Amino acid sequence: MTGAGMTGTGRTDTGRTDTGRTDVGKLVGRAVEGETRAVARLISLIENGAPELRAITAELCAAGRGARPARVIGLTGSPGVGKSTSTGMLVRAYREQGMKVGVLAVDPSSPFTGGALLGDRVRMQDHATDPGVFIRSMASRGHLGGLAWATPQALRVLAAAGCEVILIETVGVGQAEVDIASLADTTVVLLAPGMGDGVQAAKAGILEVADVFVVNKADREGAQATVRELRNMLGLVERPWRPPIVTTVAMRGEGRGDVVEAIEAHRDFLAESGELARRRLVRARDEIEAIALTSLRSAFAGLHGDRRLDALAGRVLSGDTDPYTAADELVAAVS
Amino acid sequence: MTGAGMTGTGRTDTGRTDTGRTDVGKLVGRAVEGETRAVARLISLIENGAPELRAITAELCAAGRGARPARVIGLTGSPGVGKSTSTGMLVRAYREQGMKVGVLAVDPSSPFTGGALLGDRVRMQDHATDPGVFIRSMASRGHLGGLAWATPQALRVLAAAGCEVILIETVGVGQAEVDIASLADTTVVLLAPGMGDGVQAAKAGILEVADVFVVNKADREGAQATVRELRNMLGLVERPWRPPIVTTVAMRGEGRGDVVEAIEAHRDFLAESGELARRRLVRARDEIEAIALTSLRSAFAGLHGDRRLDALAGRVLSGDTDPYTAADELVAAVS
Repeated sequence: MTGAGMTGTGRTDTGRTDTGRTDVGKLVGRAVEGETRAVARLISLIENGAPELRAITAELCAAGRGARPARVIGLTGSPGVGKSTSTGMLVRAYREQGMKVGVLAVDPSSPFTGGALLGDRVRMQDHATDPGVFIRSMASRGHLGGLAWATPQALRVLAAAGCEVILIETVGVGQAEVDIASLADTTVVLLAPGMGDGVQAAKAGILEVADVFVVNKADREGAQATVRELRNMLGLVERPWRPPIVTTVAMRGEGRGDVVEAIEAHRDFLAESGELARRRLVRARDEIEAIALTSLRSAFAGLHGDRRLDALAGRVLSGDTDPYTAADELVAAVS
Repeated sequence: MTGAGMTGTGRTDTGRTDTGRTDVGKLVGRAVEGETRAVARLISLIENGAPELRAITAELCAAGRGARPARVIGLTGSPGVGKSTSTGMLVRAYREQGMKVGVLAVDPSSPFTGGALLGDRVRMQDHATDPGVFIRSMASRGHLGGLAWATPQALRVLAAAGCEVILIETVGVGQAEVDIASLADTTVVLLAPGMGDGVQAAKAGILEVADVFVVNKADREGAQATVRELRNMLGLVERPWRPPIVTTVAMRGEGRGDVVEAIEAHRDFLAESGELARRRLVRARDEIEAIALTSLRSAFAGLHGDRRLDALAGRVLSGDTDPYTAADELVAAVS
């Protein structure tokens, strides 16, 4: 997939050579030096599934070899709980500790339009001029493994650019929050009073993915009821880590220290229990699998052109074969 | 995966042989005769990824050969818009036309617990004793292609049992509604006044998947505003089919005829434009791909046991290799 943005010539300032191909080594080198535009361009290439993706990843892996891995914190919650405000609050907290911070706002709801919404980015504009903060929105496009496939590469870019902390923010709906949880060291689930979130929490399985609960908008009526409801539900779950419940008013920065402390506590637990190493191994495994499946999918897609898949589908529709037998033929055709 | 329910012996009344293996041919035969328990058992086997899945599908395909395909109608919307009530309303409408109706309530929010919530089923109990209605809840478990993989098989069971109309109901969040849209002939998107759904609609990409809009709870304040907002947004989209907007009060059955009519109109459009045949081909293609990917994933999972994938992941973590090279090795190992 070479998008329109890939074919320009002569714009070597963004890492392209005169022939229109991207000089990946150069681009990664600039990202490592912390150049915002190089970081942005790399993440765009990743998001668009550019043919350079493989080379980019290899360069990033080489560049990051031996470096301390970035801490990855996921933030998720229903629309309206104050995710962007809370992300902004955490960015400020880590910036004050002198850390370089990356933010990935992943929009799982827009598989068609092909571009992440700008809303969240706009609300983060406080940090737009801070060279110690990288902010990117990503759309998790497509069907299978959209997020699982692109996000680890984007995290790698931000880590290579020197980010010590990376916040991934996503709407807590359906599969996206589970995907985020599988990518983050610590997953923060945000709730707000009076949104029926308590009940939703159990339903959406967020009890299983949350490492820290934040009840935001805690100055509103019902905040304590939400905390109580959460606490009761957590009492039913047997886990080695009992997620703390923190209350905040992110708009005013209230409770900021408590959130950071809860994240630190979880971090310590991860390190001491060996869970951090285990999570990272699982993550690497998932990434390898996601890439392998994506490349197989591309191989399948290649068959669309030569009509073989259409012919198989036609035979299933007419009842000449069943989809399992057809799938066997498909796998045989690409291997 | 052989669940606890698979190992009983002697319970031949549910289609098992004395040795504990399921007699698939017999079970499918009973489902074709409309036996509710056989239908339920087949869908459970499918949902649990039973080893008999392949045989079941082959039997169902053979049984369904030459039969008129069932009409598949998807219903989706945010929590609280009245999906189950609306589904119930449509069930009544089609039953009055003398059609046999299947309902699949798919819960995309619960990948962990492994069981769909019963709430929706309970609310449908009006129809529980009607032999012309089959109602099943399914959890779309797991990661990649959960829904895409199991739902077509469940649809096949219901069609084999003689259902002429099948309603798939799912919460309209994230990927699930897109998956539903790809499985349904007609996708009905439900909204309710005063839920900020108008804005959410554009964001969630439902404009692209909706064939019919239903504004439910139309007796509430703001219903007309929601209709206007939708109409304005639809005005911006160029599509050969302009989705009609219908208002209902599903609780009282108001607007029932209008919804059925709108679905009929879309159905006629599909048939006349050739879109129905195209959608069915795409669906068959998607199903074959989903099965192929699932079988490859199982092959990958088989490597977990022999530690090869762990070793690859470790090499990626240490920087000895990059995930693309590791993915190549993974694919080579299973093909």
